[in-house]
Amino acid sequence: MLISDPSRAWWCEQAWLPGGVVARNVRLDVSGDRLVAVTPDSPAGDARRLPGLTLPGFANAHSHAFHRALRGRTQRGRGTFWTWREQMYGVAARLDPDSYRALARTTYAEMALAGVTCVGEFHYLHHQPDGTPYDEPNIMGAALTQAAAEAGIRITLLDTCYLAGGFDRPLEGPQLRFGDGTADTWAERAAALSTSDTVRVGAALHSVRAVPADQFAPVVEWADSRLARLHVHLSEQVAENEQCRAEHGLTPTAVLAERGVLGPRTVAVHATHLTDGDIGLLGSSRTGVCLCPTTERDLADGIGPARRLASAGSPLSLGSDSHAVIDMLEEARAVELNERLSTQERGHFDVRDLLNMATSTGHAALGWPDAGRLAAGALADFTTVRLDGPRTAGAGEYPAETVVFAATGADVTDVVVGGREIVREGRHLRIPDVGRALDEAIGAVT
Amino acid sequence: MLISDPSRAWWCEQAWLPGGVVARNVRLDVSGDRLVAVTPDSPAGDARRLPGLTLPGFANAHSHAFHRALRGRTQRGRGTFWTWREQMYGVAARLDPDSYRALARTTYAEMALAGVTCVGEFHYLHHQPDGTPYDEPNIMGAALTQAAAEAGIRITLLDTCYLAGGFDRPLEGPQLRFGDGTADTWAERAAALSTSDTVRVGAALHSVRAVPADQFAPVVEWADSRLARLHVHLSEQVAENEQCRAEHGLTPTAVLAERGVLGPRTVAVHATHLTDGDIGLLGSSRTGVCLCPTTERDLADGIGPARRLASAGSPLSLGSDSHAVIDMLEEARAVELNERLSTQERGHFDVRDLLNMATSTGHAALGWPDAGRLAAGALADFTTVRLDGPRTAGAGEYPAETVVFAATGADVTDVVVGGREIVREGRHLRIPDVGRALDEAIGAVT
Repeated sequence: MLISDPSRAWWCEQAWLPGGVVARNVRLDVSGDRLVAVTPDSPAGDARRLPGLTLPGFANAHSHAFHRALRGRTQRGRGTFWTWREQMYGVAARLDPDSYRALARTTYAEMALAGVTCVGEFHYLHHQPDGTPYDEPNIMGAALTQAAAEAGIRITLLDTCYLAGGFDRPLEGPQLRFGDGTADTWAERAAALSTSDTVRVGAALHSVRAVPADQFAPVVEWADSRLARLHVHLSEQVAENEQCRAEHGLTPTAVLAERGVLGPRTVAVHATHLTDGDIGLLGSSRTGVCLCPTTERDLADGIGPARRLASAGSPLSLGSDSHAVIDMLEEARAVELNERLSTQERGHFDVRDLLNMATSTGHAALGWPDAGRLAAGALADFTTVRLDGPRTAGAGEYPAETVVFAATGADVTDVVVGGREIVREGRHLRIPDVGRALDEAIGAVT
Repeated sequence: MLISDPSRAWWCEQAWLPGGVVARNVRLDVSGDRLVAVTPDSPAGDARRLPGLTLPGFANAHSHAFHRALRGRTQRGRGTFWTWREQMYGVAARLDPDSYRALARTTYAEMALAGVTCVGEFHYLHHQPDGTPYDEPNIMGAALTQAAAEAGIRITLLDTCYLAGGFDRPLEGPQLRFGDGTADTWAERAAALSTSDTVRVGAALHSVRAVPADQFAPVVEWADSRLARLHVHLSEQVAENEQCRAEHGLTPTAVLAERGVLGPRTVAVHATHLTDGDIGLLGSSRTGVCLCPTTERDLADGIGPARRLASAGSPLSLGSDSHAVIDMLEEARAVELNERLSTQERGHFDVRDLLNMATSTGHAALGWPDAGRLAAGALADFTTVRLDGPRTAGAGEYPAETVVFAATGADVTDVVVGGREIVREGRHLRIPDVGRALDEAIGAVT
């Protein structure tokens, strides 16, 4: 998909380099879709100038693109995660391949404007509303990969196995379109998914609620045989834990461990309500954990044990999940700030830790170990945050701290993916009016 | 200070009116500094058009303007509120009237860009660094009121009585400049403060730590005799509560209650760590509570009992306090979202509650009961938030919910204070480059 073009160069006023060092006057030379040289203390020459702080592009490691249509709409009245889910199902029932693509395209464009260069889409809207496969069985997944291409960002399509409405409950109503019947049927369909320079494929088990434990093996084998990433929602809600204990006599984490799901290519999403034993199982197996702090506060999930998970050995990544907001800087700082709320102490994660979550670890969680750092040989994906606006001015010798703790997606000025400019000076170059496109895409399904 | 000029009018695509109703095509007619008519379903005519959602201007009810210089700088390493305070004292020691004014002017300009039309400045940098009064004893307070005028916003100068370094500890080092010796001396100096159309004056007791209980009376009397607001930091930290119990055998709230400090013109700031009895004392006396959620998470204070305080009878207002970020929408949603994190339920406050905190209740807490609502007779202070940007597009019939839960200060387009445009299309009309002005003001004191 990438068009071959001549060598190009950018010049960064400041850039955040591997090791967490901020260097000045950094020239980025690009050939094809890769960085070929990263040179601090360079003159700008004819390179395109990027004032501010340039970072590796952000990886948004957990997305349900269609939830963007719910923003604002779910904020009336009381309720829990479970009542919120009813509203979410309402939108899910109305989507078709065209409207799914339009909604994802504009949601991914919003991500690009906020500095996201790679998204992990946890995708389970596979079939027609009554559960019948489309003539083209992966047409809904293809809608997502096409949407990402149109928005100019990379995608890891995490094709999700979703077989049950709960422990010992069949899929019902709006859930019917999620289901492939069995994990083997899921694996057969998912085997036909295609990749490209900007598309990778991974697997997902929706959760221990939605996939019976005796169906895990085909999904795990599918991922193992491809060295693909395997994501799974884990213990977002206390109710899930209680139901799982009733069913299995084990925590969800222990069920996953017992069935061989954990490991360094697996990513547990949320991991909010864990026992000490769970943290040990996740950390010792080097299972990744994707935190989604802005969603977890929106949905009243609670604060997960981020520091303890990281200390136990789990690499942490970040996702905007339900897209209550799309702002990876807000996600990153929330990891530290939530720990502060929990412990009444500051300084659990430093900015290097937090930026790694948003960049290199996030990309690794999506199967892009070759992205997320400004280094020769890496994919040329980067994001520039202004330091001259009201939120970030006065940063002085603390540009990374200021960006992580005070900037927002609105401070992102420039985004490059695979050596191609996607956002310039705050404008998306392919979708000139993202707001209007969102209005239209959301209006069509609400 | 307001310049007399002819009648003017604005036309709002949507506007949030008293009672929490969003109306369309709302014409705002202004004469002098007041709204004289608010008319839904009106043609725009020759009125200036405001696309998006227009709200009453935001009241930032708790500010320490000079803390803006700390943004980013305090985010390295571990520590608590108390280690953070050491860094804060470093800046406090370096300020003089000119640099204080420059820093406040640019901080208030950042507030204006984020939709704030009135600030409550909790001011205690009264004297020269060694504690000697300036020749003009209120020159530091005057620097703040002048800063607000230059930035185009209203101010309530909450002149703060700060007499001790802790329970039974004198002021030391950088604290010396905070002190007036006795509350009577404080009252004498504060009596000379002047007001204007855009400046009101209130009193503050710094805290039960910094003002001995036998010194409360002159401050309370000063405020009572003027019907002025009286603010006080309350139970932000567990350590304060422990020290207060050791000293008085009472909680800080109970000490204030016993000495007649509580009441409907008093505002307790933070109120994070309270007993059931404290909540009862605050609520039954109708004492206001100013929450500062982004600071309280930054400083690892914890989550205060917002819902229980509101239910007990305390009107809630909001402040950005240390200015880790300046975004009243983030403060407002955090009140609800923090309750969700604490309780694992949604829907404790609706958008009307949250917007009231940011507008009418906030203004009342600063002694401007005539501001904070779009109604004939009220001060013509209003703030417009775009609905066509990536964060707010697709709002449909949920504009207020979308703004409160997903917009940021960066989505504020237009701000009018007393019928005068201060911000137009995202640009401050008086300080054309707020970023550069912040850089200069912060660079001079760090």
